[in-house]
Amino acid sequence: MPDTGPGAGAGGPPTPLGIVAGGGALPRLVAEARAGAGLPYMLVFMGEEAPGWAAGHPHEVHAFEYPQRVVAALKRAGCTHVVMAGGVNRPKIRWSRFRPSTVAFAVKALPLLRRGDDGLLGGIARLFEAQGFSVIGVQDVLGDILAPEGVIGRCEPGAQDLADMRRAAAIVRALGPLDVGQGAVVAEGVCLAVEAVEGTDLMLRRVAEMPAARRPRTPSGVLVKMPKPGQDLRVDLPTIGPDTVSGAAAAGLRGIAVAAGRANVIGLDETRETADAAGLFILGAREDELCAST
Amino acid sequence: MPDTGPGAGAGGPPTPLGIVAGGGALPRLVAEARAGAGLPYMLVFMGEEAPGWAAGHPHEVHAFEYPQRVVAALKRAGCTHVVMAGGVNRPKIRWSRFRPSTVAFAVKALPLLRRGDDGLLGGIARLFEAQGFSVIGVQDVLGDILAPEGVIGRCEPGAQDLADMRRAAAIVRALGPLDVGQGAVVAEGVCLAVEAVEGTDLMLRRVAEMPAARRPRTPSGVLVKMPKPGQDLRVDLPTIGPDTVSGAAAAGLRGIAVAAGRANVIGLDETRETADAAGLFILGAREDELCAST
Repeated sequence: MPDTGPGAGAGGPPTPLGIVAGGGALPRLVAEARAGAGLPYMLVFMGEEAPGWAAGHPHEVHAFEYPQRVVAALKRAGCTHVVMAGGVNRPKIRWSRFRPSTVAFAVKALPLLRRGDDGLLGGIARLFEAQGFSVIGVQDVLGDILAPEGVIGRCEPGAQDLADMRRAAAIVRALGPLDVGQGAVVAEGVCLAVEAVEGTDLMLRRVAEMPAARRPRTPSGVLVKMPKPGQDLRVDLPTIGPDTVSGAAAAGLRGIAVAAGRANVIGLDETRETADAAGLFILGAREDELCAST
Repeated sequence: MPDTGPGAGAGGPPTPLGIVAGGGALPRLVAEARAGAGLPYMLVFMGEEAPGWAAGHPHEVHAFEYPQRVVAALKRAGCTHVVMAGGVNRPKIRWSRFRPSTVAFAVKALPLLRRGDDGLLGGIARLFEAQGFSVIGVQDVLGDILAPEGVIGRCEPGAQDLADMRRAAAIVRALGPLDVGQGAVVAEGVCLAVEAVEGTDLMLRRVAEMPAARRPRTPSGVLVKMPKPGQDLRVDLPTIGPDTVSGAAAAGLRGIAVAAGRANVIGLDETRETADAAGLFILGAREDELCAST
């Protein structure tokens, strides 16, 4: 039974859920889910300004250089639980903003910037825990966001697709201890792209723009997204949505495989419809399917 | 003592060196080196047409679907040694070109297309060996093309650069058994890019085009190029040249590290001058420098 966040079924009055908001659609989905359930929450954007949609939600904005202000805002709002929703951009640090009183916190936070996304986000999660918050995952708030097991939609992967999927999964797995990325594209045995800090959308765009002579015929190939081995599953789960499907179609791929139960699908119905319309398969793959020897 | 190819110091009349020509500058360099030394050779381009510079050299062109014609051309010319120079594009196969008489050869050659570049090129090398040819490396013909050990040029790597280099080397090493690529870019601990089939130039271009918020400040970061563990060093050694340096500079990197003695530097003087002018370091790194724990 997952910790579904403060107030969802537990006894006593619910405490506000602190939503530390990164980019993408997740912060809004989490905020709207809490609002829809009549449960309290407080959005905190780490950066320079809040996006337009935040206007209707309780929120504060604090620059990355003032992490103690984020902590103070969450405590002031009465939060006991925190969810980190959405990827973060690697902030540009303005050293002049630091004050002697905050140096102790900063010396813990800043080395995190020298890591990959997982090290960065996992490290931030541990900083919140050290401040007394319980850190929960987006999937604990949005119960239906995790990728289901099996084929999603009408198109099914073929034998070559499954072989490509296993090879891409082996690549992501090999890079796991090095905190590089969560995705790779393999087509007919050839690795077309490995995801690093650029993210999935840009990776798919470069596959789309790849000279025909550098890759096997189209359509071919599978995008795999899965967490790194040992990844903190409360932060930065691999995520797909309708845009990922459109990007994969533009890249001439045959389908997408995600780790069932360990990846987010934003907008399952729209994602399925986009895949069906484009003729792509989506597979929620079990661990043993992803790990079978190639 | 390397096998320097037929006729370079060995007794007896030299036999022509078969140069199986891929893309880039290497085929021309090899042909001109043989011509300059007064030694015979025969260029064979696998594809549809020869580049313009080939006009002054003995050459033939044969489509990939007719590998037996390549073998026949090399034997007809009296070649006993073959060098594979330059990367190959992954050919589009036109099945209608195959004849029943060539199927036996084709069934060996075609599965190679389902591998990465190293599997493809190494497999082609073994096919030539099975036909009785000795396969030698470009470095056996162009003795001075291998990267020297130590700093090349005026700029020196700093401590952060060496840490970035080791992390990028660990990434290339982890992917080695999976035949993905020979390069990666790491900046201040963050992996900015992993090279797959797109090649180094396109990888550097995407680092150059990366949004500033996704990466550490510029300049920062190191491009590492090194062979995969267990790679057949006679084919497809990692290669840099002046264009690589320009690409790394445009990508906001601080330098390039290559495996000393196991990577090609095309045009060492021009490469050094380009690096000095751009303020980039180039390091020919020893195996133990690349492998030190990060």
